[in-house]
Amino acid sequence: MNHESLTALGERVAAVNDVLNAISCLTWDSRTMMPPGGAETRGRQIATLTGLARDLLLAPETEAALEAAERALESLSPEALAPDAPERRIVAQTRQAFAYHRRIPGHLVTERAALRTVAQAAWIDARARSDFPAFAPYLEKTVALARSYANAVGFTDHPYDAMVAVYEPGETAASLRRLFAGLRIGLRYILDQARARPAPRADFLVRDCAEAEQRVFGLAIAEAMGYDFARGRLDTTVHPFEVSFTRNDVRITTRYNRRYLPASIFGTAHETGHGLYEQGVDPAYTRTTLATDLVGLYAVGGTSFGAHESQSRLFENHVARSPTFWAVHFPGLQKAFPDALSDVTADEFYRAVTRVEPGFIRVEADELTYDFHIMLRVEIECALMDGSLSVSDLPEAWNAVLRRDLDLVVPDDAHGVLQDVHWSSGTIGSFASYTIGNVMAAQVMDALRGEDPSLDASLAAGAYAPLADKLRERIWQHGRRFSREELLVRTTGRGLDPEPYLAYLHGKYVG
Amino acid sequence: MNHESLTALGERVAAVNDVLNAISCLTWDSRTMMPPGGAETRGRQIATLTGLARDLLLAPETEAALEAAERALESLSPEALAPDAPERRIVAQTRQAFAYHRRIPGHLVTERAALRTVAQAAWIDARARSDFPAFAPYLEKTVALARSYANAVGFTDHPYDAMVAVYEPGETAASLRRLFAGLRIGLRYILDQARARPAPRADFLVRDCAEAEQRVFGLAIAEAMGYDFARGRLDTTVHPFEVSFTRNDVRITTRYNRRYLPASIFGTAHETGHGLYEQGVDPAYTRTTLATDLVGLYAVGGTSFGAHESQSRLFENHVARSPTFWAVHFPGLQKAFPDALSDVTADEFYRAVTRVEPGFIRVEADELTYDFHIMLRVEIECALMDGSLSVSDLPEAWNAVLRRDLDLVVPDDAHGVLQDVHWSSGTIGSFASYTIGNVMAAQVMDALRGEDPSLDASLAAGAYAPLADKLRERIWQHGRRFSREELLVRTTGRGLDPEPYLAYLHGKYVG
Repeated sequence: MNHESLTALGERVAAVNDVLNAISCLTWDSRTMMPPGGAETRGRQIATLTGLARDLLLAPETEAALEAAERALESLSPEALAPDAPERRIVAQTRQAFAYHRRIPGHLVTERAALRTVAQAAWIDARARSDFPAFAPYLEKTVALARSYANAVGFTDHPYDAMVAVYEPGETAASLRRLFAGLRIGLRYILDQARARPAPRADFLVRDCAEAEQRVFGLAIAEAMGYDFARGRLDTTVHPFEVSFTRNDVRITTRYNRRYLPASIFGTAHETGHGLYEQGVDPAYTRTTLATDLVGLYAVGGTSFGAHESQSRLFENHVARSPTFWAVHFPGLQKAFPDALSDVTADEFYRAVTRVEPGFIRVEADELTYDFHIMLRVEIECALMDGSLSVSDLPEAWNAVLRRDLDLVVPDDAHGVLQDVHWSSGTIGSFASYTIGNVMAAQVMDALRGEDPSLDASLAAGAYAPLADKLRERIWQHGRRFSREELLVRTTGRGLDPEPYLAYLHGKYVG
Repeated sequence: MNHESLTALGERVAAVNDVLNAISCLTWDSRTMMPPGGAETRGRQIATLTGLARDLLLAPETEAALEAAERALESLSPEALAPDAPERRIVAQTRQAFAYHRRIPGHLVTERAALRTVAQAAWIDARARSDFPAFAPYLEKTVALARSYANAVGFTDHPYDAMVAVYEPGETAASLRRLFAGLRIGLRYILDQARARPAPRADFLVRDCAEAEQRVFGLAIAEAMGYDFARGRLDTTVHPFEVSFTRNDVRITTRYNRRYLPASIFGTAHETGHGLYEQGVDPAYTRTTLATDLVGLYAVGGTSFGAHESQSRLFENHVARSPTFWAVHFPGLQKAFPDALSDVTADEFYRAVTRVEPGFIRVEADELTYDFHIMLRVEIECALMDGSLSVSDLPEAWNAVLRRDLDLVVPDDAHGVLQDVHWSSGTIGSFASYTIGNVMAAQVMDALRGEDPSLDASLAAGAYAPLADKLRERIWQHGRRFSREELLVRTTGRGLDPEPYLAYLHGKYVG
């Protein structure tokens, strides 16, 4: 429908989207291109633009346009305009974000931005010296601020609920506890069986592989998966990420380790999955609420962090970390690195990149142990938020869970509680999305396989377009119009369900 | 001095500076990194941020802080706070910009931004087909809008005065006419004598030189000149430029032509001069009015476009296009390109890169003919602004002046009136700064040589720090605190004076 109130609201949101995309560009630049000297003022530039985006959203003009649009939609019957029509979703989501930000006092926003700057510096320093007590005061302030946020935003059962809702709308401390209870048992069962099998050969993974050739191979697999370089780039960074400045400019990054080839390959595949999601959003949604996270103040087309992660994990683990993928691509890899791979078969390579080995570091974890690292963090975030765990007791709690779940004795805090950047940047509530992404990826793949038995034959032939077409139709094109749970119901017939994920892992690692 | 009103005003201006630096980052990215798909929304992002910067400047909070700061400064005697103290300049310049933008109706700003988008596309198309009539309607609108701007801003004598003031405060149609009258005669006199001399050998300039080695050489000369890569980058672009996101992140670009080595060398030297100016601004001025062009809404530390150009031309022409520079650097160049330069001497190289040959294209012009291209454009801009020349008569007028000044017959409009991007982007009034830069560069060099006879010995030894130290002390560090004319008086004892420029050219090209 066309209505002048929707146009007026659309112009306000488009301006917010422009500002948020500018922030994304400043952030991408700071992590890929910026000379060291630029760091001093870049944080201020991002803080100023974030404040302006919030001001634009909360301006009286936005509220007036929102109210007029709500009145216009109320007068329309569900027959005239469906309840899930883009217009209705735009108005409802903008209203929700407006209400969210109005509940948060400005001083909390300012304090959070100020704390982030000093806390990150303190964390970098503390991690380098493995000195948790040096970081503890900042984490205490971060937790206190998060609790103030939760109180301002409001929650029914648990203060964590207000935090996780920003990243994974619909999830709560209670819903995650239920999800994780089943996952923990199932994963442990599979892990124990997998570890009873003999370890594969993996000596060749640490042989020298030149960065330039790694990059060429990464570009080739991203392109094979359908990533469009006329609307994207692949750059080098320390901590790989994907970011979009609208569907037509979606950038991915990776890192190259000369002595560990899998890092760039699976990192690139992972970020390609994120990138495909963003590149696949309906062009009509550009600069609208349906391509803007107005709650999180982030220009993104994906509907939740977990839904986004489902697409990256799907391409990383279901596509690239599969025997058929290496049957197709190993000859090319071997040709690119003859010195490192001449005595290796495709099957040996696949077995090496799917070997299971519990470790301390989340970002290096294999598929069977990764979720334990996530569940640990969510458990601890919940306990910090409700006060049942104090910051000073955190290392002990962390180490106890890792021993309980993975039989590991953490040697020092740098390999434990200090390893992640998230808390130092003021982020609490985002970790659950990683595991939700894993669960969703398997559930979606299971459903797509069920409805199209030829899908595996295409993948085995190295043809990824049939898969991408289905994902575009079911997930990517919808941007933020549907929630993650709605996408799952539309694609798989039911909400989030860990069963296909456990079945996939069992088949892959136990057989 | 410290005063809460100055602090409040400073915070407002700092936010404007943050937004303008974000725009600079978006612009840099669009010209160096952005994939083709990104163009669609990048223009909107920049337009939104420009509007926000203007809104921040014109907000009631800024005006209130400005008025309070003015009252605080009025109460101080010149003995307590000098008339040219940074605080007084900050307040006066912010007031001037506030008044400037308030005089311009919002609809003119919107129309200008909208016209720019379509006019640039039309210009690119018209230039490719050398079809001036296809571009004429857009240029007519651009001129009409510029006249509306001039009327809104106000002027005493000539509507052009309101346009040139944005780029070169203090200059007017009348002041430029006086400057150009003398220059035209002097330049023509030198040009005629120079052309009477035998042309040097230049065959080797079009020999193949690999881009990678050109880049290495460019990086080396930028570094030798004092450009700090911890606070900068050198990237590749189509039309080279320099841009800063504060003094600690100053980026230069160049282009590489395998078949014309001088393009990258002198392009890099030129942009290095711009970059040194920005990197040399007093750190205390970061995010203040003294490092922000609040009239032009551009984050820049240089005090006028002409002052900026003086530093780029100084490093391009006085430093790099000199016999002593090549006495030092030619052996390195020869080593980098043995195939292209083995049969060439340093002196032959210098003579080749200073050969004189009138041509149609401004950006390819030599030192002796460049200013004729500028004077032509300023003459035409003045006539378009006061209505004495209509757009339809423009090609004829252009071609007549080029025949009069350089004895050239323009073959088509692509080599004539359609060659520059400026008018298609809505820019009228900026051309004069290029010639002012040339004049200022020679005047400054003449003064510095006069006060330090050892300067030439340092340059001849390849030591550029003594020159850079002087320029930093006299010009760079002051940012926008002093006007271009004030800098000239402080450095050379008098205002802009073409005599040293003509003397320099005569010595270099006639001897």
